[in-house]
Amino acid sequence: MKELEARIKRDGRVLGEDVLKVDSFLNHQVDPVLMHKMGQEFYEYFQDKPITKVLTVESSGIAPAVMTGLAFEVPVVFARKHKSITMNNDMYVADVYSFTKKTTNKISISKNFLSKEDHVLIIDDFLANGQAVSGLTNIIQQADATLEGIGIVIEKTFQKGRQLIDHQNIPILSLARIKAFKNGQVVFEEE
Amino acid sequence: MKELEARIKRDGRVLGEDVLKVDSFLNHQVDPVLMHKMGQEFYEYFQDKPITKVLTVESSGIAPAVMTGLAFEVPVVFARKHKSITMNNDMYVADVYSFTKKTTNKISISKNFLSKEDHVLIIDDFLANGQAVSGLTNIIQQADATLEGIGIVIEKTFQKGRQLIDHQNIPILSLARIKAFKNGQVVFEEE
Repeated sequence: MKELEARIKRDGRVLGEDVLKVDSFLNHQVDPVLMHKMGQEFYEYFQDKPITKVLTVESSGIAPAVMTGLAFEVPVVFARKHKSITMNNDMYVADVYSFTKKTTNKISISKNFLSKEDHVLIIDDFLANGQAVSGLTNIIQQADATLEGIGIVIEKTFQKGRQLIDHQNIPILSLARIKAFKNGQVVFEEE
Repeated sequence: MKELEARIKRDGRVLGEDVLKVDSFLNHQVDPVLMHKMGQEFYEYFQDKPITKVLTVESSGIAPAVMTGLAFEVPVVFARKHKSITMNNDMYVADVYSFTKKTTNKISISKNFLSKEDHVLIIDDFLANGQAVSGLTNIIQQADATLEGIGIVIEKTFQKGRQLIDHQNIPILSLARIKAFKNGQVVFEEE
């Protein structure tokens, strides 16, 4: 998505070797008009799938997920993040390891909002090491629901996230694909 | 907003004396089409104000805030919640006391995203005891920005939130105003 790539070039800040800060339009301050266009891109790509639900993780996934849900006119469920959680029978729970923070968090979704009838589109802000998407995929399996596709705002193709997903034969659309950071600049994959 | 009231009546669950669970369309599962309509209601009410930014708190405020930002075509900033936070010069920080959890959290906003030029519309999912709105108001004061209005999805008028705000002469729009829970049913204020 050219407009997103231009925005990353203009407003993204590269920190160290593998961190891209996009808190001026995606993670802390959000550009709703851009989010709306991203939702429509995801819709165009996945519109032939019988999507019944969009799934994401709080908080940065919510804005793009809600705009995608608006395009599909289906509910959006955002998984809650917890440092710890008391297991109970009302929730699906999965682990999400953070490579940057070197901690494992739990994510959870109420069983009321995901069932085996659901055809799910996962939307998330980043695909890097693939831990959040793996946690969501795990929850979809627990619910016996069908994963139809994965939509990512920014993928870092030099990290191992996509490898984790690719062998499952799930269609993935990443709106911006970064192959490297070079001298503090973002280098995108060719389209 | 009649559609929201009908939805609360249909899908809201009253727990105990003063808790309303709306996690099937607002707090955990989100109805994006309803959120979009709510964003338009807020826009219609506050469109004469020179809004430059919409402010909310993660996570439940994000969906209605982003839809409001879409209508105004202005950025949305969501405050981060923290159990504790190391004070630093890059962030505005305020306390938010939770009456249900009996704990104080910190909320923070990067100084990059709020300044004295900003005219702010606060959007939040609930107005009950007014602690989240007070925290955001405090941050707006720290930034020397102008608070132009407050948009609330669900107000519980029998709690003291509005009293905290009313004396400041800030326009408030609550899309649903609940005056009581009676035998497990929601009773709305007359319009």
